Amino acid sequence: MTSKTAGTGLFISFEGIDGSGKSTQARLLADHLRGLGRDVVLTREPGGSAGAEEIRALVLQGDPDRWSAETEILLFTAARRDHLERTIRPALAAGKVVICDRFADSTRMYQGLSRGDLRAVVDDLHRLMIGVEPDLTILIDMDPSRGLSRALARNGTEERFEDFGEDLQAAMRAGFLALAEEFPERFVVIDGDQEIECVAAELHRVVLPRLKLGNSQPDKT
Amino acid sequence: MTSKTAGTGLFISFEGIDGSGKSTQARLLADHLRGLGRDVVLTREPGGSAGAEEIRALVLQGDPDRWSAETEILLFTAARRDHLERTIRPALAAGKVVICDRFADSTRMYQGLSRGDLRAVVDDLHRLMIGVEPDLTILIDMDPSRGLSRALARNGTEERFEDFGEDLQAAMRAGFLALAEEFPERFVVIDGDQEIECVAAELHRVVLPRLKLGNSQPDKT
Repeated sequence: MTSKTAGTGLFISFEGIDGSGKSTQARLLADHLRGLGRDVVLTREPGGSAGAEEIRALVLQGDPDRWSAETEILLFTAARRDHLERTIRPALAAGKVVICDRFADSTRMYQGLSRGDLRAVVDDLHRLMIGVEPDLTILIDMDPSRGLSRALARNGTEERFEDFGEDLQAAMRAGFLALAEEFPERFVVIDGDQEIECVAAELHRVVLPRLKLGNSQPDKT
Repeated sequence: MTSKTAGTGLFISFEGIDGSGKSTQARLLADHLRGLGRDVVLTREPGGSAGAEEIRALVLQGDPDRWSAETEILLFTAARRDHLERTIRPALAAGKVVICDRFADSTRMYQGLSRGDLRAVVDDLHRLMIGVEPDLTILIDMDPSRGLSRALARNGTEERFEDFGEDLQAAMRAGFLALAEEFPERFVVIDGDQEIECVAAELHRVVLPRLKLGNSQPDKT
């Protein structure tokens, strides 16, 4: 199931390891598309709706071990369901472009892989309660040690999502690349080790043709 | 799967419509069993562990429509998973009696039935993320109008769980009785329209023999 069932808009997610520059590129792409006259909703996960932001805070606050991996997956799925219902689906139904900084692929990686062998649980839960995948997933691929130093240089206030450590960064990078091979129909891998402007330009070449396609497709609901 | 996999204790849940007296009876039973020298954990849902109580607050606060039925089911399942991991399983593993005021059957009724035709979703999610059922479920059955007037007479501060209205109370009563027929191996229906002491005495006759059984069974983990 893809977001095409939810309207005529285009649903784009950005994925990648911490420090890969995906949030910057998501913002730059949103600005560029707005400059072209498109209505864009720039959002993020976990969060992206009032309820989902509250769930995000619940997951981020306090001791890192306060939730088991399974409970965390349930909380993230609850947040995603709310985000989908309140933000993503209405925007797509109105023909808007939704650009989302992280979506279900991050849960597949961070909860499904880094906290244990829970990928099957993540996938079952996704199938049951979410169902939707982005039309296009941009993976900003980056050398793990470079991503790590960039992530560490930031003044993050929500440290719990910055799972620092080069081994983990390398495992997550390999995991994201494997996901891109698993879902070739929606993943596009972009080299994030280039200059910001070069990454942005490559993104335009990837997104603009799909945008036209997204516009011309009738609502299949 | 039953709680027998989790230890040598006995897992008892209380279910019933609002105002049926189940919380009172759960407390009286806990007191009685403690008087007989048993180690009892009296708990409740949603809640029953630090994390689950926070999720409970999140669900209860604010506008009743702030969460869709599906998101609410996910949040309740997250709370239940935490409750199970942090409170119920450790107590059962230590051979204690766990008495829980509401468990998954309440989600089957209140989220699976009263907010839409979501019983299959509740069951799928339960199978995937919880798996455990109580050894014994006490359904305190009561005339819906009597339950309603008792519930209304209380000074509830968390009104959102008191879904007042006689039609809903009657539908929930019928739903709980149907659940008892669906799971005859663990449900015992007790007439809650009797005097409190009579209900308590009937409960002792039901629970005490099972307690002996619960004690004598080896841990099968």
